[in-house]
Amino acid sequence: MKEKLLEFRSEGVIHKKFKATSVGYDWNTFPMKLYQIGKRLFWDPAKIDFSKDKEDWKKLSKDEKNYLLNIVSLFMAGEEAVAVDITPLISTMINEGRVEDVIYLEQFAFEEAKHAEAFRRFCDSLEINDDLTIFTTEYNPWYQKIFYEELPSVMWKLRVDPSPENLAVAVTTYNLYVEGVAAESGYKTFKHIFNSLNIMPGLSKTVNLIATDESRHIAYGTYLITRLIVENGESIYRKAIEQFNKLVGIVQSLTRPLAKLPFGLTPDFTIENRKQLVNARLTVIERALKMTPEQVKSFSPKDLGVIEEIKLDK
Amino acid sequence: MKEKLLEFRSEGVIHKKFKATSVGYDWNTFPMKLYQIGKRLFWDPAKIDFSKDKEDWKKLSKDEKNYLLNIVSLFMAGEEAVAVDITPLISTMINEGRVEDVIYLEQFAFEEAKHAEAFRRFCDSLEINDDLTIFTTEYNPWYQKIFYEELPSVMWKLRVDPSPENLAVAVTTYNLYVEGVAAESGYKTFKHIFNSLNIMPGLSKTVNLIATDESRHIAYGTYLITRLIVENGESIYRKAIEQFNKLVGIVQSLTRPLAKLPFGLTPDFTIENRKQLVNARLTVIERALKMTPEQVKSFSPKDLGVIEEIKLDK
Repeated sequence: MKEKLLEFRSEGVIHKKFKATSVGYDWNTFPMKLYQIGKRLFWDPAKIDFSKDKEDWKKLSKDEKNYLLNIVSLFMAGEEAVAVDITPLISTMINEGRVEDVIYLEQFAFEEAKHAEAFRRFCDSLEINDDLTIFTTEYNPWYQKIFYEELPSVMWKLRVDPSPENLAVAVTTYNLYVEGVAAESGYKTFKHIFNSLNIMPGLSKTVNLIATDESRHIAYGTYLITRLIVENGESIYRKAIEQFNKLVGIVQSLTRPLAKLPFGLTPDFTIENRKQLVNARLTVIERALKMTPEQVKSFSPKDLGVIEEIKLDK
Repeated sequence: MKEKLLEFRSEGVIHKKFKATSVGYDWNTFPMKLYQIGKRLFWDPAKIDFSKDKEDWKKLSKDEKNYLLNIVSLFMAGEEAVAVDITPLISTMINEGRVEDVIYLEQFAFEEAKHAEAFRRFCDSLEINDDLTIFTTEYNPWYQKIFYEELPSVMWKLRVDPSPENLAVAVTTYNLYVEGVAAESGYKTFKHIFNSLNIMPGLSKTVNLIATDESRHIAYGTYLITRLIVENGESIYRKAIEQFNKLVGIVQSLTRPLAKLPFGLTPDFTIENRKQLVNARLTVIERALKMTPEQVKSFSPKDLGVIEEIKLDK
């Protein structure tokens, strides 16, 4: 545990010290490395042109529109959820005196806000003004359970009890499952559609840019869960595995397969896609048990799958 | 009060709805306008070149170095303070269901983190590695009182009681005094030095870029205190005035004037500078009493002094 920055006293909260003016920032910490990459790869959702997407949209069949609207709705609400629910994690890092983590997480929060903006801009540009809530609830009960209930519960619990156990459950839910499995599998489906049909260039570009940001967010989760397991041992490892399996179970039991899949998609594609991601994240948690504090300190963005340059398909 | 986004229940926190997927975002709200400008004017502290500053620094007298180090230390710690202490304001806006405010404030927090980074980079580039804490404490007791105690106390109080009264005290302290008087008077002093002597181009550029961001932050404070007074009436107005005067009193009673001022600065310059800013912020609070909700809704960044293009002196 680092020296606390803030102290809560009966007469009020005080800053005990400032890192910038006392010892300076440690640019070599993993969160600082991610933060530098994030500034270098900054992008603005307002600059994405959806005019060709609007033309393409008109040519889609009813099933195709519905399918796209489904994924767009899940992403749009999901980005708003993560933009809001990151807040207690930032407070936790403030309490622990980890200024470099706080700096990175403030960038992270801003990026989530931009992602929500980007999906909303897509809908506004295409004049999709319907209430899309039903896609995030009745049509996808697994989504409702995870994004309306599980995610905010584990995140805001940090506000009352930011223990290493609760932090491990939070990062497993937020970064490893929500970002690392649910969102990642969505990107892959999107990319499959856009690349095979060469449609919706604005949305395609948006998804690529978001996936670039998310590679840093997931890497932060990998870093944090590893640090927690290395510092606190097997009880934390078990908490993480238990929570991860709980989420996998919720999704499996509440997913209702669609009767027909448009865009040449097959049920196997989706299932295989998700299975690979689940295994990748479980491997991250497993691997942490054998790691040393020195290994965690020397993590590099590249090792953890961070995309360091923006590559736009087509 | 808007519809709440989050609900805290005994079994855990739930999202009640998502704005993006239900009614969409209101791009015409004042915070959203600031947010769009903020993305357009994005800049990266890592790209500022301090090599000429390093040469200039060597040529300064001991008194000049000490004077600059004093302001740089106050800014550096101050930027870290505001980057940390904005967090409970974000939580308050989440609780109130004001998603557009949350989106803007996440950008705001990221900008404060970048400002702290920028001042630290200046010191690192000039190989200033001393512990500078003494400038923020013993040498400036007014600063210690405001930044170590008053600011965090009023901000983190929102976490236990986010009432309109406490919110008004928080915004008066954070946006109107700390940003709107203390920081603004520092920029003016910096600009006076850099423009008259044509030295330190990296730090000069940094201060210009930061002041551009701060013009939005202060405008947000103006918007928020006005909305609070318009919505809740005179009791809030009185709270704001009382807190503002308290802060003015702390600074007046605890400021120790320097024996000699370098760079051709005079005591009158500093006093006049601060007085003008104090009056400007008091005018903002006074004016709010006569405003209507419609006027608050139609606030434009330009009316509130937001700098909409980056203009670098020299």
